[in-house]
Amino acid sequence: INVQRYKGGFPWIGIPTFFHLPVALTPEDLKAGEVDVAIMGAELVGGMRARTWGPMEMRNPHRSEIYHLWGEWAMPELDSGLAWERELRVVDYGDAPMEPLSLERTIPEVRKLVRQIAGVKLKNGKQTVPIIVGGAHALMYPDYAALADVYGKDKIGVIHFDAHQDYAPTGFGHIHTHGNPVRALLLEGFLEGDKFVQVGLRGPTSTDVPTLKEARAAGIRYHTMAEVEKRGWEAVMEDALKEVREQADYLFISFDVDVIDPTFMPGTATPEPGGLYIREVLPMMRRLCAENDIVGVEIVELKPDADVGYTSVQNAKAVLRQCLNGMAMRKKGLT
Amino acid sequence: INVQRYKGGFPWIGIPTFFHLPVALTPEDLKAGEVDVAIMGAELVGGMRARTWGPMEMRNPHRSEIYHLWGEWAMPELDSGLAWERELRVVDYGDAPMEPLSLERTIPEVRKLVRQIAGVKLKNGKQTVPIIVGGAHALMYPDYAALADVYGKDKIGVIHFDAHQDYAPTGFGHIHTHGNPVRALLLEGFLEGDKFVQVGLRGPTSTDVPTLKEARAAGIRYHTMAEVEKRGWEAVMEDALKEVREQADYLFISFDVDVIDPTFMPGTATPEPGGLYIREVLPMMRRLCAENDIVGVEIVELKPDADVGYTSVQNAKAVLRQCLNGMAMRKKGLT
Amino acid sequence: INVQRYKGGFPWIGIPTFFHLPVALTPEDLKAGEVDVAIMGAELVGGMRARTWGPMEMRNPHRSEIYHLWGEWAMPELDSGLAWERELRVVDYGDAPMEPLSLERTIPEVRKLVRQIAGVKLKNGKQTVPIIVGGAHALMYPDYAALADVYGKDKIGVIHFDAHQDYAPTGFGHIHTHGNPVRALLLEGFLEGDKFVQVGLRGPTSTDVPTLKEARAAGIRYHTMAEVEKRGWEAVMEDALKEVREQADYLFISFDVDVIDPTFMPGTATPEPGGLYIREVLPMMRRLCAENDIVGVEIVELKPDADVGYTSVQNAKAVLRQCLNGMAMRKKGLT
Amino acid sequence: INVQRYKGGFPWIGIPTFFHLPVALTPEDLKAGEVDVAIMGAELVGGMRARTWGPMEMRNPHRSEIYHLWGEWAMPELDSGLAWERELRVVDYGDAPMEPLSLERTIPEVRKLVRQIAGVKLKNGKQTVPIIVGGAHALMYPDYAALADVYGKDKIGVIHFDAHQDYAPTGFGHIHTHGNPVRALLLEGFLEGDKFVQVGLRGPTSTDVPTLKEARAAGIRYHTMAEVEKRGWEAVMEDALKEVREQADYLFISFDVDVIDPTFMPGTATPEPGGLYIREVLPMMRRLCAENDIVGVEIVELKPDADVGYTSVQNAKAVLRQCLNGMAMRKKGLT
Amino acid sequence: INVQRYKGGFPWIGIPTFFHLPVALTPEDLKAGEVDVAIMGAELVGGMRARTWGPMEMRNPHRSEIYHLWGEWAMPELDSGLAWERELRVVDYGDAPMEPLSLERTIPEVRKLVRQIAGVKLKNGKQTVPIIVGGAHALMYPDYAALADVYGKDKIGVIHFDAHQDYAPTGFGHIHTHGNPVRALLLEGFLEGDKFVQVGLRGPTSTDVPTLKEARAAGIRYHTMAEVEKRGWEAVMEDALKEVREQADYLFISFDVDVIDPTFMPGTATPEPGGLYIREVLPMMRRLCAENDIVGVEIVELKPDADVGYTSVQNAKAVLRQCLNGMAMRKKGLT
Amino acid sequence: INVQRYKGGFPWIGIPTFFHLPVALTPEDLKAGEVDVAIMGAELVGGMRARTWGPMEMRNPHRSEIYHLWGEWAMPELDSGLAWERELRVVDYGDAPMEPLSLERTIPEVRKLVRQIAGVKLKNGKQTVPIIVGGAHALMYPDYAALADVYGKDKIGVIHFDAHQDYAPTGFGHIHTHGNPVRALLLEGFLEGDKFVQVGLRGPTSTDVPTLKEARAAGIRYHTMAEVEKRGWEAVMEDALKEVREQADYLFISFDVDVIDPTFMPGTATPEPGGLYIREVLPMMRRLCAENDIVGVEIVELKPDADVGYTSVQNAKAVLRQCLNGMAMRKKGLT
Ligand SMILES: [Mn+2]
Ligand SMILES: [Mn+2]
Ligand SMILES: [Mn+2]
Ligand SMILES: [Mn+2]
Ligand SMILES: [Mn+2]
Ligand SMILES: [Mn+2]
Ligand SMILES: [Mn+2]
Ligand SMILES: [Mn+2]
Ligand SMILES: [Mn+2]
Ligand SMILES: [Mn+2]
Ligand SMILES: [Mn+2]
Ligand SMILES: [Mn+2]
Repeated sequence: INVQRYKGGFPWIGIPTFFHLPVALTPEDLKAGEVDVAIMGAELVGGMRARTWGPMEMRNPHRSEIYHLWGEWAMPELDSGLAWERELRVVDYGDAPMEPLSLERTIPEVRKLVRQIAGVKLKNGKQTVPIIVGGAHALMYPDYAALADVYGKDKIGVIHFDAHQDYAPTGFGHIHTHGNPVRALLLEGFLEGDKFVQVGLRGPTSTDVPTLKEARAAGIRYHTMAEVEKRGWEAVMEDALKEVREQADYLFISFDVDVIDPTFMPGTATPEPGGLYIREVLPMMRRLCAENDIVGVEIVELKPDADVGYTSVQNAKAVLRQCLNGMAMRKKGLT
Repeated sequence: INVQRYKGGFPWIGIPTFFHLPVALTPEDLKAGEVDVAIMGAELVGGMRARTWGPMEMRNPHRSEIYHLWGEWAMPELDSGLAWERELRVVDYGDAPMEPLSLERTIPEVRKLVRQIAGVKLKNGKQTVPIIVGGAHALMYPDYAALADVYGKDKIGVIHFDAHQDYAPTGFGHIHTHGNPVRALLLEGFLEGDKFVQVGLRGPTSTDVPTLKEARAAGIRYHTMAEVEKRGWEAVMEDALKEVREQADYLFISFDVDVIDPTFMPGTATPEPGGLYIREVLPMMRRLCAENDIVGVEIVELKPDADVGYTSVQNAKAVLRQCLNGMAMRKKGLT
Repeated sequence: INVQRYKGGFPWIGIPTFFHLPVALTPEDLKAGEVDVAIMGAELVGGMRARTWGPMEMRNPHRSEIYHLWGEWAMPELDSGLAWERELRVVDYGDAPMEPLSLERTIPEVRKLVRQIAGVKLKNGKQTVPIIVGGAHALMYPDYAALADVYGKDKIGVIHFDAHQDYAPTGFGHIHTHGNPVRALLLEGFLEGDKFVQVGLRGPTSTDVPTLKEARAAGIRYHTMAEVEKRGWEAVMEDALKEVREQADYLFISFDVDVIDPTFMPGTATPEPGGLYIREVLPMMRRLCAENDIVGVEIVELKPDADVGYTSVQNAKAVLRQCLNGMAMRKKGLT
Repeated sequence: INVQRYKGGFPWIGIPTFFHLPVALTPEDLKAGEVDVAIMGAELVGGMRARTWGPMEMRNPHRSEIYHLWGEWAMPELDSGLAWERELRVVDYGDAPMEPLSLERTIPEVRKLVRQIAGVKLKNGKQTVPIIVGGAHALMYPDYAALADVYGKDKIGVIHFDAHQDYAPTGFGHIHTHGNPVRALLLEGFLEGDKFVQVGLRGPTSTDVPTLKEARAAGIRYHTMAEVEKRGWEAVMEDALKEVREQADYLFISFDVDVIDPTFMPGTATPEPGGLYIREVLPMMRRLCAENDIVGVEIVELKPDADVGYTSVQNAKAVLRQCLNGMAMRKKGLT
Repeated sequence: INVQRYKGGFPWIGIPTFFHLPVALTPEDLKAGEVDVAIMGAELVGGMRARTWGPMEMRNPHRSEIYHLWGEWAMPELDSGLAWERELRVVDYGDAPMEPLSLERTIPEVRKLVRQIAGVKLKNGKQTVPIIVGGAHALMYPDYAALADVYGKDKIGVIHFDAHQDYAPTGFGHIHTHGNPVRALLLEGFLEGDKFVQVGLRGPTSTDVPTLKEARAAGIRYHTMAEVEKRGWEAVMEDALKEVREQADYLFISFDVDVIDPTFMPGTATPEPGGLYIREVLPMMRRLCAENDIVGVEIVELKPDADVGYTSVQNAKAVLRQCLNGMAMRKKGLT
Repeated sequence: INVQRYKGGFPWIGIPTFFHLPVALTPEDLKAGEVDVAIMGAELVGGMRARTWGPMEMRNPHRSEIYHLWGEWAMPELDSGLAWERELRVVDYGDAPMEPLSLERTIPEVRKLVRQIAGVKLKNGKQTVPIIVGGAHALMYPDYAALADVYGKDKIGVIHFDAHQDYAPTGFGHIHTHGNPVRALLLEGFLEGDKFVQVGLRGPTSTDVPTLKEARAAGIRYHTMAEVEKRGWEAVMEDALKEVREQADYLFISFDVDVIDPTFMPGTATPEPGGLYIREVLPMMRRLCAENDIVGVEIVELKPDADVGYTSVQNAKAVLRQCLNGMAMRKKGLT
């Protein structure tokens, strides 16, 4: 559904969908439009996390401008020479519903919506790729589960950017919180631990040592910031890219924005000093999306209120754009 | 066009149109929907005024939340017992186009769009009421002119809330700026001076004395804040309401948010200390819209960037809501 | 327990308890110290409300300084000539525990702690007065229930300052949310509706009309801001003070900071334009606490993060101080 | 010395002197220019007060714009019809020097500079009026003392706007602090207590009770905010204006910006909730300066850093402008 | 013209000119003072860009303090051992005039003023170097054109730091906007493309691909951030420095602050994530100004309002200081 | 003294001591508790520095959350696998007293309190390590002097992180300011210059050249940021670590937060662009505290008000945590 009066324009004109994209609300819309990528919002919150305004601010061009001209006015990324807005068909799929007092009741709704998107078969033999904008990291559970519903269990590798391991045993007896989606997925058998590559872990509230050992025993590979400090980002990035390629045919990217250092990304719920800098993250995302068969992406834990400026939302959008740029490169054969 | 997946919900869920209302893009949409009120954005800027982000932030629920539940979840105003969302059919009509380097080229486009809305004839014998969210006050010219195109010249009274008289002779030789729309309209004969009631004028950059005399000679009635300080708001409000009723059958409300004191409304382009307080403004707007035949409303000069908090956008939205509340009261016969 | 090295000092020196008061952690401490008032924090949150940081910032002198010298350096209020720090024995009772993923599990813990305080019998025949610093308004349920546990059912009147009626039928099937504590208390028979006097109600998300009628049927008295706009604050304040005195021997003050206009109190969770101004609130609180037998006070819905400045916390503290000032006046017989 | 290239202009063009006025650095400059009013900055600080940036930000048009066109572009105040920039000859006299580690060494330098200004005799029989922009209120001592040096002891009444009485016995054994200039002046015999009218006092750190009694014994008249709450501002303002006129032939205005409520004036060093609102202050200042022979004005305790927005500086400038407006009215005989 | 009362001092004392330097308003002043460098402000704005407050905030020491002691109190840079304030004669040349509603009318005024400065011949055979503080990048046209007026066409190389190529075909039919000064200069034959070295280009709104090809065809050399990510800053910096030296005898530095990553420089009009970090920029600027014959510098696109903190202004000032430091080194023969 | 009701918990629950640690107020408490490390606050200010709120905000978990679970809920650092809260006994020792108008009177009080801590002999043969949270850098004098009182003169090396050399001859005739503690200590013979290793010096207000030469003559070793830019941080860090080890048996760390680049640490009193980035600082601190016998640490010049966000406090806390982490590693033999 086109909700813009014009074919292109300035950021501050028009209805603020994600990147001013057209809206689609049903799988039929996606199929009819041969949509490559559908971006949806999911204010999945609960417990200590209130509404994050992540999806709303990722739509709003005000705090994330990047001078972004939309529609026919879009310009290419300089590294690829491509404007993804033109190479890919991308839509705003609206938001998942939300039961604000119960995470447990909301999770199946998210899963259903992601499955709707991922299940759409396009004429080119591909399926629509869901991008989920969160919302708390508890999303990893319904997001991955929905993909597994469509592609099968243990078929999809995960690259998981995060300051935290998100493998806590339980959260006060709850299995679905932002602190333990990795465990929930493993426990319920959606994938094996060796499908996980974690990047950016650091303290002091990432995990405890027994859990870390358990994680290693489960086959999870991880790269801490201490490793990055010692070996340098180049080396760690190359290793992680290689491990990802070896894992599985399909790749799911779970991007917790707190992997980025809080000076570059203050707008997040559990900031930890000493994270990745923005010029380390952008090429990594571009390469991941250009060199792999991405079946889903989530970008979570954005909390714009914690940033009195605009850099958090803008950087989050830049991360997402680099992935879309990479997907466009892949479609064009430019990897 | 409905762009929401759900029938009602929280502010932070869904595509952020004005108050999460449905979208309409053509007069046919308005007619088909029997739309009472169409809200449109107009980033009319130029010269010293850059994009104001007024329309965008008035759509975005984040900085102006009022805990506003939308659609079927909407609740009534306590003073009227009505939820205007249910009494009136209101839509988001999108934005006017914008030629960022030329006010002169943009003005006719705005006029055209406002005329489109105001010209729609409804089954109940009324016409759709345009509400224009600005943008600079230069909008008064195309907004009123469009209404005059539809209703005829000198048929529509104007109540003009402003710290400034907006009757400057010219702005560097330009007739269309935020400083002289009143003069432009009078010069071109769209209405007589006695159709104007101005409220809230104060210094030190409101006007010069010769201009003030000219204004008086032209028949413009005005109430300065010095008068409010002396006589009290109650007395001045009653006078202004009476003058308005005597003027004309139809009423256009031109609301420059800088009429409000900058402590309550820091987010404006030319703040002047000593303005109206919020509890003076809200009942005034409610009564104006309940007691008169409103044919158009503009709310202009909002500049959210100048407010590091959220009160400006929220108060601007409260002003608009009170007018919609008043319109709903009038429709119900509750004045 | 004294945690300060000095007998008095500047705000920025020492361990930041509430007003730099001594700490007490058990009812025995309260009894031993003949404590008149015990202030406790309660981060009762849930659902859409995350941690509010209310208690923490009410302790921290940084954003709420009022130049407050503590201990022996404290100075008197000019209206009463009293320094409450010297007239009353007041302590910081620490915080209630919190189960972040379940409001239901936390509520009994809060009730237990409040009951501990209120149950302490002093030598002068009085009982210690709990002041609860929230946290979401769902606190009204355990706070009042604990007082009823101690003083008996239907013995304590409530003056309830709020923009909202907090009488919603249920919140998504949950009886304990910030939107329906009044109903929960009535349903469970803790008091009759005629014990409630509500002040400051306004739209647009205060209540719906059937609920309002139900409230009236239940005997709840309320004063909307529309009434204040029409009759003036003086008249409404006197009425409310009178109604309060007629209700019951004991009084509980439930102060939702959103009753204050958001320009004066931006730091709250559900701001509504058009509320009370600060110079209306302060004398009201002083008189309430000077002229009545207060058995408990809660001050809730403070959300300092929503205020980029400091006025919210400072004003909230001023409200609390005026109540303590009033209590000191009553103790001295100065009402 | 003219430091502007143009005869008038926008706020954002030119060297930012106070109101873009010409600069004068010596008494000879003042005499040559027949200067009516000389505005000087004084970063008098010490102890707990660091640099306040008051003078710098009062020069900078950025945070206090009032859309203020300067020089030939200046417009009149609407209440008087006068543009003070044209009626009075006003200059920026630069800043007093500052010994940052010793208040005691800086005070005589300020006194010397104020005396320089006040001692200039103009052809019309008047003397140049110094306006001192502070800086801490310790300025009251050198500012008044310098005027007494010129006009004689006990000849000049003082209207003192402040939340605080500034009559503390001593500050840690120091007689010159922002807390005791009133006492310092009385102790050293510069004037009698009955020359003081204080407006706006309120707690909780204004003064202690014995000091208040001492003040009353010394003949100081004061109006607390508690009096304003009871009697209304109109009545108190008229009383204060009358008392001022009865005191002495000359008047010195000592304006501590903390007399204004911190919602309207967050940018101050010792904010106290419950102060004057802006629409109470502006007419008071205009009348004071129109109806009395002003020999000096100080505006102190501005601390722009404490205001993340711009209202504090803008309101402080509005207060100063209303006084200049009043002076222009008096010169024109418009009182 | 000296506008300071003292020979040196703290940042917060005195009239806030650029770095508290003396003022000069005419070429005669420059000649008389044997001025090496004259810094002027130019609020050249238009269309989507309103006043930027760049020059005003670069003068104001408040948000850009660097603890900068001025005049005789200035201290040396640690890398060179020189205090440029002592080695060079530098002045504040005031601001260019501004026609706020027409870029076209303002541009010739800026060109005239820059030409005035650059045309001053000093006794040492050099000419005064203009530094222009903007304002929008449309300044590049009048700034370079003025230098060409003085030094001749195609005599001056340009190192152009920018996220954007600024070579857009036209801006809505306007040749003078912040998006196409490079094209305007080339089209009008002021210089050949091979005199341009561009550093820091990145997406997504830098340029389109045909334009990039055109740029390459025109001989423009550019270094994208993608190149920096791959080859490292050291290598790219050395290449750029070498290319600059080969180009021409004279060098003009056009520094668009958006070349810096927005985490370090949020205060700019079109931020693009992924730019240079501050420790890359500072040595580059020092070396450029020490190793080349600089005939002009512009620093543009600063927009302090977009930075709620102070780092943008401070970093912009540091960039400028490093160039002045380099010039001082060159004068001393320390390159 | 335990002031928490619970054994562990969330940041937002409980009395906000440093890291929610127990309180100790006397040396006896320290001895009884076998306390390894005692953290104390010291608002040592004077002259141009007002209260910094450093200690208060370092206690307050709100702006420095790091999601820090306390007590039994604490988690280990990922690099060491240790939770220092469990390996070390650490307490909050409260604050030093403060005479706000006299640095000279406060300094002996600080020295006394630091000496109290450092003089406590533990059963394991060690002595309690004081960590002083400032407050201005004038603290270096009483902090080091107290250690020298306990350990003897010239026995303790100093690693001094700072943008500034802090070796100014005098500050307006005062020997104790934030600009000359190094000189004060050397002058009074507490240690020789060769015990100093300074890291991070840069301009433009670090020092003057004669002072730098004097410093070198006195044997002080220093590493400027210019050296870091040329040689890289790795090389400089290794050199500094080596120099430190060669100096003395004991080490005192004097950490001025302005050594960190102001983009990462805007909340400081004299920011200088071009400093260390956070990922350079954290491993350095960990290694320093793991590889040396630390007898005292000070972290000074934090000024949270200068940071509108939270990163400064959070990064300062991260620096402190890495030192505690290193100490825990050393205790466990993990260096
Ligand atoms: Mn996560
Ligand atoms: Mn995380
Ligand atoms: Mn207007
Ligand atoms: Mn206006
Ligand atoms: Mn409530
Ligand atoms: Mn409420
Ligand atoms: Mn005062
Ligand atoms: Mn005061
Ligand atoms: Mn540019
Ligand atoms: Mn650019
Ligand atoms: Mn230092
Ligand atoms: Mn330093």
